[in-house]
Amino acid sequence: MSPSPVDPSDPVFALHRGGKLAVAATVPLTSRADLALAYTPGVARVCEAIAADPTLVDAYTWVSHTVAVVTDGSAVLGLGNIGPRAALPVMEGKAVLFKQFGGVDAVPICLDTQDVDELVAMVTALAPSFGGINLEDIAAPRCFEVERRLTEALDIPVFHDDQHGTAIVVLAALRNAAAVLGRKLGDLRVVLSGAGAAGAAVTKMLIAGGVDAARVVVCDSRGVIHRDRPDLPPAKAELAALTNAHGLAGTVADALVGADVLIGVSGGTIDESALARMAPGGIVFALANPRPEVHPDTAARYAAVVATGRSDFPNQINNVLAFPGVFRGALDARATRITEGMKVAAADAIADVVAGALTPEAIVPSPLDPRVAPAVAGAVADAARREGVCRAPAT
Amino acid sequence: MSPSPVDPSDPVFALHRGGKLAVAATVPLTSRADLALAYTPGVARVCEAIAADPTLVDAYTWVSHTVAVVTDGSAVLGLGNIGPRAALPVMEGKAVLFKQFGGVDAVPICLDTQDVDELVAMVTALAPSFGGINLEDIAAPRCFEVERRLTEALDIPVFHDDQHGTAIVVLAALRNAAAVLGRKLGDLRVVLSGAGAAGAAVTKMLIAGGVDAARVVVCDSRGVIHRDRPDLPPAKAELAALTNAHGLAGTVADALVGADVLIGVSGGTIDESALARMAPGGIVFALANPRPEVHPDTAARYAAVVATGRSDFPNQINNVLAFPGVFRGALDARATRITEGMKVAAADAIADVVAGALTPEAIVPSPLDPRVAPAVAGAVADAARREGVCRAPAT
Repeated sequence: MSPSPVDPSDPVFALHRGGKLAVAATVPLTSRADLALAYTPGVARVCEAIAADPTLVDAYTWVSHTVAVVTDGSAVLGLGNIGPRAALPVMEGKAVLFKQFGGVDAVPICLDTQDVDELVAMVTALAPSFGGINLEDIAAPRCFEVERRLTEALDIPVFHDDQHGTAIVVLAALRNAAAVLGRKLGDLRVVLSGAGAAGAAVTKMLIAGGVDAARVVVCDSRGVIHRDRPDLPPAKAELAALTNAHGLAGTVADALVGADVLIGVSGGTIDESALARMAPGGIVFALANPRPEVHPDTAARYAAVVATGRSDFPNQINNVLAFPGVFRGALDARATRITEGMKVAAADAIADVVAGALTPEAIVPSPLDPRVAPAVAGAVADAARREGVCRAPAT
Repeated sequence: MSPSPVDPSDPVFALHRGGKLAVAATVPLTSRADLALAYTPGVARVCEAIAADPTLVDAYTWVSHTVAVVTDGSAVLGLGNIGPRAALPVMEGKAVLFKQFGGVDAVPICLDTQDVDELVAMVTALAPSFGGINLEDIAAPRCFEVERRLTEALDIPVFHDDQHGTAIVVLAALRNAAAVLGRKLGDLRVVLSGAGAAGAAVTKMLIAGGVDAARVVVCDSRGVIHRDRPDLPPAKAELAALTNAHGLAGTVADALVGADVLIGVSGGTIDESALARMAPGGIVFALANPRPEVHPDTAARYAAVVATGRSDFPNQINNVLAFPGVFRGALDARATRITEGMKVAAADAIADVVAGALTPEAIVPSPLDPRVAPAVAGAVADAARREGVCRAPAT
């Protein structure tokens, strides 16, 4: 209740006054006839029809174009565990982006619990209200279990954007970076710095997309992750089993010796001296935001292609390239989940948008490029149908 | 998955195709500058400000104009326990009405549980996302405990519309019915047929509004509720203690002998012969929908003022006269709860809209009368401020 230091005339706060979302009616309600159709008594017939055939809920309610953006406020942007109320502006922003780029109606759901069982039970109970669940800004390792259990429990898509959105865009960027350099994905030696939610998902996505698992080395704050490290929690033990076939040990600087690709998703820093030991003409994605692991100007001294998460440098790796189209496509196809194949298809679609005009400073589309989401949606829906993970449409 | 008998060209189903709601962005997001304000990096400053001072959530998110319309699908319209999916069209319709009449952004939340503890835990956890909780179509007696516990747990308004919305409009209608007949509320002998959620709330609201509790008799399907009945669950025992000071026993027909007012909220039927024994020139509200407890034409043979819940007869008792304005006013005043005084103020405001032109066939405004919600909102906000149940505004 103490006076706040907020300046209401500050453009950021002025824009946020009253929030960034509204609910709109898509049917008229100005006459008694309207009321009788959209509300009682007419609505009762729609309710009865859905009660008799639950598949009709897609056709006759808003769920077919609706996603819940669910957070527990535990890992919000780079701000950490700020709780559900303080997370709401990010979730509203996400909903604006869902609408703007994917035509998806997204509702912020900020939950006042950080217990895995409660999160799973609550999102499961909420699911009848929505066509998909976008998990957002939930801390690792809790996010892995929450997503896994919800994916098992629900027959609608569940997608933790901090993991998979990032991973899709990184794969798209790496494809185009390799293409612009005339390299093959399978030949690249890749070092990931960061083994949290994003690092784990990026690792798996790159491998699904054609990177050679044996040549991938993942590092956390203690150094290289390998099979003999005794301190690994389950999520990291899985990465150790998947990657680093040669059993490399040591620091991230050790791992970078002769590497072709550095992908930073850690929030830590990488010394210039370590970059200098990479193979020449390589690729650096320094994705920590707002402070990349290495400044892009420094990275450019050692790498031929550089990307960051920042909008003020070329090659911005931004999840908005993925999530609106991924959910639009999954909803359009009535997909019951989002498979690796659908994610790879999304990455390919993002990469293809700029494939005809590749330069080292334009390996990904602009986050505002309106061609991206429709291309991603189409590719994701096609992949879902191909893989047979779609609910049958109601008659 | 069996073929459905639904005819998509039926006007009700055609109107419901794709649902009745959308989410709209209220800020632009078409340039990098927009992104930097509405999303990263700008949004982080809003999150940090709310983390430091949670009262700022009202000013800088959409919660100040947002209500969750929460159901467990257990008592939907007259359809009963059809579950959360089949309940969604009603909740969407409610959200359309919230927007149309109150300018309130309402989100349907259909929960896939009917356990009281789970409902309370889930709505409590959801509360940071919303400015108010409208409980809807939750069966009695569960609805009483859910509402009581949520009201205790939360510092935002919680309002079970099936109870209080109905009760507010009935009080408004009874005030004007008494006025048009030149009667005083406190002199009326009132019989309620129905002791479920609506019946209990109507009873308390009428007493709060000036009806003499001693002269009220409430009946359930077994007859008159009185203090010596051994079969009463807690909610009905409370009604027995509150009403029927003379210890009347017997059937609803017995209770109606000499009564001035019959209010039916039961879904049962009332025999014409019982109506014939009421005091002449009285009042009948037969509110079961779509089939009133007694046909209004029949009631009109014995009563001077007749109201129903139906749109095709005069004097439609419709909750939409109350809930949009009640929440608009509560949100405007930053009320932490909705008190009896706020509800009586809402009823007075509804009644006053048509008080200057009362006839026996126009005791309540039309549900579509645009004057009602602003009048209710103003009265409710004033009452909240007068009673001191408002959160302090952020600076």
